[in-house]
Amino acid sequence: MLANEEMKALLGDSRLHERITTAEEAASWIEDGMTVGLSGFTRAGEPKAVPFALANRAKQEPLKLNIITGASLGSDVDRVLAEAGIVRRRLPYQSDDVMRQKINRGEILYIDQHLSHTAEWIREGVLPPIDVAIVEALAVTEEGLVIPTTSVGNTSLFVQRARHVILEINTAQPRALYGIHDVYEVGERGARKPIPLVNPSDRIGLPGIPVDPDKIVAVVFTHQPDSPSPITAPDAVTDQIAANILQFLRNEVAAGRLTPRLAPLQAGIGSVANAVLYGLMHSEFHDLEFYSEVLQDAVFDLIDAGKVVFASASAITLTEKKMQEVFRDFDAYRNRLLLRPQEISNHPEIVRRLGLISINTALEADIYGNVNSTHVRGTRMMNGIGGSGDFARNARLAIFVTKSIAQKGAVSRIVPFVSHVDHTEHDVDVLVTEYGYADLRGLAPIERAPLIIERCAHPDYRPLLMEYYREALKRGGHTPHVLEKALSFHLAYERNGSMRTAAGTGVIGR
Amino acid sequence: MLANEEMKALLGDSRLHERITTAEEAASWIEDGMTVGLSGFTRAGEPKAVPFALANRAKQEPLKLNIITGASLGSDVDRVLAEAGIVRRRLPYQSDDVMRQKINRGEILYIDQHLSHTAEWIREGVLPPIDVAIVEALAVTEEGLVIPTTSVGNTSLFVQRARHVILEINTAQPRALYGIHDVYEVGERGARKPIPLVNPSDRIGLPGIPVDPDKIVAVVFTHQPDSPSPITAPDAVTDQIAANILQFLRNEVAAGRLTPRLAPLQAGIGSVANAVLYGLMHSEFHDLEFYSEVLQDAVFDLIDAGKVVFASASAITLTEKKMQEVFRDFDAYRNRLLLRPQEISNHPEIVRRLGLISINTALEADIYGNVNSTHVRGTRMMNGIGGSGDFARNARLAIFVTKSIAQKGAVSRIVPFVSHVDHTEHDVDVLVTEYGYADLRGLAPIERAPLIIERCAHPDYRPLLMEYYREALKRGGHTPHVLEKALSFHLAYERNGSMRTAAGTGVIGR
Repeated sequence: MLANEEMKALLGDSRLHERITTAEEAASWIEDGMTVGLSGFTRAGEPKAVPFALANRAKQEPLKLNIITGASLGSDVDRVLAEAGIVRRRLPYQSDDVMRQKINRGEILYIDQHLSHTAEWIREGVLPPIDVAIVEALAVTEEGLVIPTTSVGNTSLFVQRARHVILEINTAQPRALYGIHDVYEVGERGARKPIPLVNPSDRIGLPGIPVDPDKIVAVVFTHQPDSPSPITAPDAVTDQIAANILQFLRNEVAAGRLTPRLAPLQAGIGSVANAVLYGLMHSEFHDLEFYSEVLQDAVFDLIDAGKVVFASASAITLTEKKMQEVFRDFDAYRNRLLLRPQEISNHPEIVRRLGLISINTALEADIYGNVNSTHVRGTRMMNGIGGSGDFARNARLAIFVTKSIAQKGAVSRIVPFVSHVDHTEHDVDVLVTEYGYADLRGLAPIERAPLIIERCAHPDYRPLLMEYYREALKRGGHTPHVLEKALSFHLAYERNGSMRTAAGTGVIGR
Repeated sequence: MLANEEMKALLGDSRLHERITTAEEAASWIEDGMTVGLSGFTRAGEPKAVPFALANRAKQEPLKLNIITGASLGSDVDRVLAEAGIVRRRLPYQSDDVMRQKINRGEILYIDQHLSHTAEWIREGVLPPIDVAIVEALAVTEEGLVIPTTSVGNTSLFVQRARHVILEINTAQPRALYGIHDVYEVGERGARKPIPLVNPSDRIGLPGIPVDPDKIVAVVFTHQPDSPSPITAPDAVTDQIAANILQFLRNEVAAGRLTPRLAPLQAGIGSVANAVLYGLMHSEFHDLEFYSEVLQDAVFDLIDAGKVVFASASAITLTEKKMQEVFRDFDAYRNRLLLRPQEISNHPEIVRRLGLISINTALEADIYGNVNSTHVRGTRMMNGIGGSGDFARNARLAIFVTKSIAQKGAVSRIVPFVSHVDHTEHDVDVLVTEYGYADLRGLAPIERAPLIIERCAHPDYRPLLMEYYREALKRGGHTPHVLEKALSFHLAYERNGSMRTAAGTGVIGR
């Protein structure tokens, strides 16, 4: 714990000194029925004390809150809030096991939203007004700027719009982060100017979030690093997916559609996306830029290797080891990074203008290129769409990656008809598995299906998929289907525990 | 027919005078296997002579072409090209009966694409290079600008990129159209600036399309008005849909989310969208602006009534009577209209910046708010997604409208699970039928389903839909479904000619 004077030194406005308090005291500003905005984006920069105090309070008194964040929270905050039964409504993204179960039981109302859209809903009053913002920060400057930590997310809008702000000054977050934030406010619709960002490295905003100090009702000091990213190391399958993406990109360069500098890259959260980025390490591509929503381990290794010259995002989410390395030597990265509000990192205007190459993970894809990112067998929420739609919809290249099978082959990630659609056939350019890639651009559905089956499906499933497709072809149509068998893979899994049993005519009787 | 001197007066560059020729001669520039770009957007401004000459040539010799347009073509061009068997690949949109049949038989490879995306694919070389552009124009100016007629569409990019350009100077198109075009080129990705458009009325480009006269290999004169729009007059059902939209908008004003000036409006093509706009005529809303892709009859009536102060689009598509009225009195509209490339009219950057209210037609919607705009029972292409995705995905308000039933009630437009997804649950804000509207913003799936069933479904179908939903709820999940019955409405129609027969357990045996 810091001495009192050291605490005050982090609060540039002396009015804040008397508001230093405990998490419990701070939490008392929050009342049943309120809408609360929490900092935090993909397990980075969430408040780490007040949410726990809230969960404790819920043991004594009824407490139901609407919880809005940037994206998923680390430090088990989503878990603890869910376990405490505090969460009535949750948006726009989460990735916690316990919360997921409650969502799937209908106990938490989850609004699975494009990450760039939440800010617009707050601004326009579609969502209830934010009563309290609970925001992790490095400090408040003398100029009255709240300096975020490892993420910006929706924090700037929460601070601006909330009636009351509770700050958590986290002294375990590296001071070195000072200066890497770029907070730009797009303003009200109807009076908006173009966003003046034409390169990923353009600084267009302020180094922190302007705040009215009178709104800051409590300041809590914490000293706890972000929880480490749980991503797993690349494996043989993800290595092969990466190799296939590289081959695709190489072919694009050969066709004159890209240069060896490629185009600003976006990669989704998770192990597969992280792993495929490692593929760039020993490639011929160079002087790369990222314009992404979250920077995982691979991006820092690519900066170390001199492959990446700049990376813009809304959050930094690292494994334990990488976190220590990066924050120890942060000066090596300082001039190569910017963290922006998620509205800007994911903004359609910028995504389209820069012409991003967007790489996101599919939960399943169908033979026509529709992608399900969220729902296991069409019903059970996994995590959420996150920013994948913000990017894929407006990018130059929307690439979706998945392993061809899951559960030791009981699940094919390529199915006749996805059980839920998050990215339509119109928005999926390239589909990649460890078996190859299918470049769907400019192809009609009847050209797409054989290509996806041959290039992307697991060999064990190809005959089943071709059998479906051939039967569908006989019925005709622009996008041939056998409607009564369209979901036969999913039903076979539900009945027999394996999609392999979807064969033949017995699946769903006519 | 014009006298020779009158023709030359419309060609500001004297080098073009000697290239005046017949449609047959002009068509001889086009060879088997070529990719041809045609002007034309939603039945406005397509070339009206050379395509017919091409169709004639196909009687004598093999001819297969890739046909790229702005959107659908009028003057039966798509029909004649399809009947002649000329079309190998067609994008990004069509709406002709004969072509539709050939697409659904797999005889024409149709790429159903977001209308703002085609230009990017051309620029980046995803599509084959444009060999020949066939473009309708009013004239070529002394400054070397091709002046389009009733649409801009993708014409500017075709002219810029094509190896050869064939001009059709249509002297039946009103000269009054001079000056209403605003041609802006976004440039290559990687070197793009923000598009400097912050109001629908902002002029940001040139009054015509710059052309290298050496590329113009033939000039053909025609004298034929656009074919009239086939939209039908409003009926009691569309009136009620319009009333429901107005009620929704009124409630938005009451909630402080909109003013009586609303926000720039976009409305899709077709009778329903046109009819709902008439609802604005006697409303309290005023000083309205359109930022749309096509202007149909209603917009001009709204300008006449003083309701609409400005309308930006990519095309003007009118019924026969309205066409005569509008072009006779065009000076009344001149300062209230701009026609832009479809890339700009539909650009995500502008759609998001202006905060459009986007109204498009659904073919069917499901109880969770997913929308099918294109595929009858998941397989047969109707027309295409058009610009609906460009708008809905990035708009402030994505409103989808449909009549609750079709085919005298044999088809419910509200189904348990759409048979094709063009607009995902993430992108559909409000669903409207003649029975009411469902405002889906901020709602979890289990809140959406009962609302959509109660407010939007036809009363005859509500019990069936609730039966499905209640059974699904028992199975749980964030988005509850009974997978083996998800498509039961569509299957019931296929088997028995009516979705009403989807009741009970016998639909698809477990």
